[in-house]
Amino acid sequence: MRGIISEKMMDEGTDARELPGNLLVAQSGGPTVVINSSLAGVVQEALNHECIGEVYGALNGLHGILSGQLVDLAEESQHVIRGLRHTPGAALGSFRRRMEAGDLEKMFVAFERMDIRYLFYIGGNGSQAAIHAIHGHAQKIGYEIRAIGIPKTIDNDLVITDHSPGYGSVVKYVATTVREIAIDDQSMGDYNLVSIIEVMGRDAGWIAAGSMLARTSGTPFDAPHLIYIPERPFIDQEFLSSVKKVLMQSRYCLVVVSEGIRNSEGNYVQVSGIKDPLGRTELGGAAEYLQSLVEKNLKIKTRTTKLGIAQRAAAHCASTRDNEEAYECGVRAVKAAIGGASGKMVTIVRESDTPYQVSYGLSALDEIAGKVKEFPQAWVDESGSMISNNFLRYVSPLIQGEVEVPHKGGLPEYVHLLGAEKFSKKVAAGPGGYR
Amino acid sequence: MRGIISEKMMDEGTDARELPGNLLVAQSGGPTVVINSSLAGVVQEALNHECIGEVYGALNGLHGILSGQLVDLAEESQHVIRGLRHTPGAALGSFRRRMEAGDLEKMFVAFERMDIRYLFYIGGNGSQAAIHAIHGHAQKIGYEIRAIGIPKTIDNDLVITDHSPGYGSVVKYVATTVREIAIDDQSMGDYNLVSIIEVMGRDAGWIAAGSMLARTSGTPFDAPHLIYIPERPFIDQEFLSSVKKVLMQSRYCLVVVSEGIRNSEGNYVQVSGIKDPLGRTELGGAAEYLQSLVEKNLKIKTRTTKLGIAQRAAAHCASTRDNEEAYECGVRAVKAAIGGASGKMVTIVRESDTPYQVSYGLSALDEIAGKVKEFPQAWVDESGSMISNNFLRYVSPLIQGEVEVPHKGGLPEYVHLLGAEKFSKKVAAGPGGYR
Repeated sequence: MRGIISEKMMDEGTDARELPGNLLVAQSGGPTVVINSSLAGVVQEALNHECIGEVYGALNGLHGILSGQLVDLAEESQHVIRGLRHTPGAALGSFRRRMEAGDLEKMFVAFERMDIRYLFYIGGNGSQAAIHAIHGHAQKIGYEIRAIGIPKTIDNDLVITDHSPGYGSVVKYVATTVREIAIDDQSMGDYNLVSIIEVMGRDAGWIAAGSMLARTSGTPFDAPHLIYIPERPFIDQEFLSSVKKVLMQSRYCLVVVSEGIRNSEGNYVQVSGIKDPLGRTELGGAAEYLQSLVEKNLKIKTRTTKLGIAQRAAAHCASTRDNEEAYECGVRAVKAAIGGASGKMVTIVRESDTPYQVSYGLSALDEIAGKVKEFPQAWVDESGSMISNNFLRYVSPLIQGEVEVPHKGGLPEYVHLLGAEKFSKKVAAGPGGYR
Repeated sequence: MRGIISEKMMDEGTDARELPGNLLVAQSGGPTVVINSSLAGVVQEALNHECIGEVYGALNGLHGILSGQLVDLAEESQHVIRGLRHTPGAALGSFRRRMEAGDLEKMFVAFERMDIRYLFYIGGNGSQAAIHAIHGHAQKIGYEIRAIGIPKTIDNDLVITDHSPGYGSVVKYVATTVREIAIDDQSMGDYNLVSIIEVMGRDAGWIAAGSMLARTSGTPFDAPHLIYIPERPFIDQEFLSSVKKVLMQSRYCLVVVSEGIRNSEGNYVQVSGIKDPLGRTELGGAAEYLQSLVEKNLKIKTRTTKLGIAQRAAAHCASTRDNEEAYECGVRAVKAAIGGASGKMVTIVRESDTPYQVSYGLSALDEIAGKVKEFPQAWVDESGSMISNNFLRYVSPLIQGEVEVPHKGGLPEYVHLLGAEKFSKKVAAGPGGYR
């Protein structure tokens, strides 16, 4: 595999000279259940390279870099580093703040002071854009640093890479839950029932589509019966007649809907109007919107489930393959930097479906930052409410294997970074936290 | 164990004469992840008794009994019966319809025709009331039948029994999910956050209280920070000041709320106004109500999760102890009936906490039917928003052990009763199903 990377790097004329210095790794954006597995990959691979001195982690990403809140990851026990491989959340702390004017300058003062020469950012679109800006600034001011992005997103919307670490596990959890709810729905036999499950997906339907895996047979009357994704406009009347059609054949109709579905005018259905810290409209309420349509128009009992944050935190239901690929992306990022690469993101390249085989590559960040990989229209059937079986060939391999999470007292046992805990104790300080 | 039952039965002057005849078992009410484990217990114990002829299952409970839709459980494969022990939903199909005038008479015509002499009902309050009525009618008309109730409810609100099969598993799943969401919340470090998780519990706070188990330390600043149950009136201002207090010490505040919380006038907060088939107000919206309070009054980012039906269907996260006790309740019910008992429900009697030990008893249904076991006020602390540690001694033993669910293709593999499938194919017939 390393061969592949070096090759690519030669093509791109990277500089393989040995660069002595310290390493800084950060996490950002919404966590996934495998984001810490990538962190473990970076830390463990870093120890294999003499030229890397200190291995720092930035607390709360950009925030920690700017405020100098770093933890020494070499100080963490082997038990904790191993535990990261099954622990959800962002162990270093995450953040959503965007870069502001002057941030880059401040950052490089800190980099110089701490002799940071290796920078790894585990994140989605926003993070890759940040790495891209940092790499550009380094070249502008002639500061030698090797900055590599590590893909991470449950949304699977990063371009070029075949898929993103975090996606396989969220789909495994959602499909497991949809299958379980379907069995419950099916057993309530004395009335018709519409069951609506709202899943994440602001702009892309990858997660909702993945619920297709819950089907035990190929038949269209196996749950989920209907799937609605943001890429297709949501038409009330089409939805209602689809539900009626399903109920002609089945006593229940199970619907999976992305939080981000929009009507034909392109507006989110029933947005709450609340804004998040980035000024984006907070979603949620898609399930309630569909519920009100069914209950008003069809007078059929309807239940909703909103999995919310559980989707990206359910480490007890993680995919082994996803977990291993996340770890490997961390390892590859370090190897790529050692090999001289910078301004790149590690990508997963699918070599074959059966048997499932991948290699790892590198892509220039300017081809990735700010771009969104939509769910392919070719995989949505004519009805617009069901996903084609071709998609299953793509997604099935990503959910294989069950990560074994150690349990204590009947509950999963997760780890905390000692350094991060020290800080959070130090900084706990009323509303506003330590800002 | 059997000794205990026989003893009780002696006291109650039960009739231990051998009664030859057929067995009928039914499931009703909302399923739990272990309701089929009790069914497996009934079926497997029945095979040990010569006097029991056919072993029938009623499809969709009362409905199947009245319409004669029965399956021959002896025809099911060993693989399927074994599979029932980890399969969610009600394998025989459930129902919510209440008994109507004339039902008892119709029922006994069917019983006589099929020589049903052993009747087992796996369910909650409503089902126990049904068994009670059936037992009473049998005595009135002098029809010899041994009717035993098997406890089942995620709500844990059945009286007399120490706890009900189904409760341990829902609590294990909710506490696991709360712990995972807490870790995610904690890692979003650049802004304060209120996280609200709505769980089931129309009248009793047992499930919400069980989320206490998610705490990794005894400190009050470990999530969940606040818990609201139906037994205590919900006061907006108290809630808001509690949230503020938590945010003085922690960057996030995780709240677990029962769907059934009521204001001081005793009305559900923000009910949707929709009625279910029994004319009961459909709940849900408690989380949204708390969210709007926080966002309007405190202007803090708030996210909600509504676990919905997933709570009672998440067999991939079931408690081994709960599963084994559910199975044993099925076994005990058959033994009790063979011993001559009728009009009784199997109860779990806690002999000790450490080591955890239970025995199984029998209680008269008139002491159980229609009664609700509220969450003990003594276990709610002064603040009204947190549960005392004494409760942990009660609940901890119930979530011990992880049920191993076979997986195929990365997803849990569940079973279907062949007989039930045949019927559901036969009866699929448009809206209204087969009613």
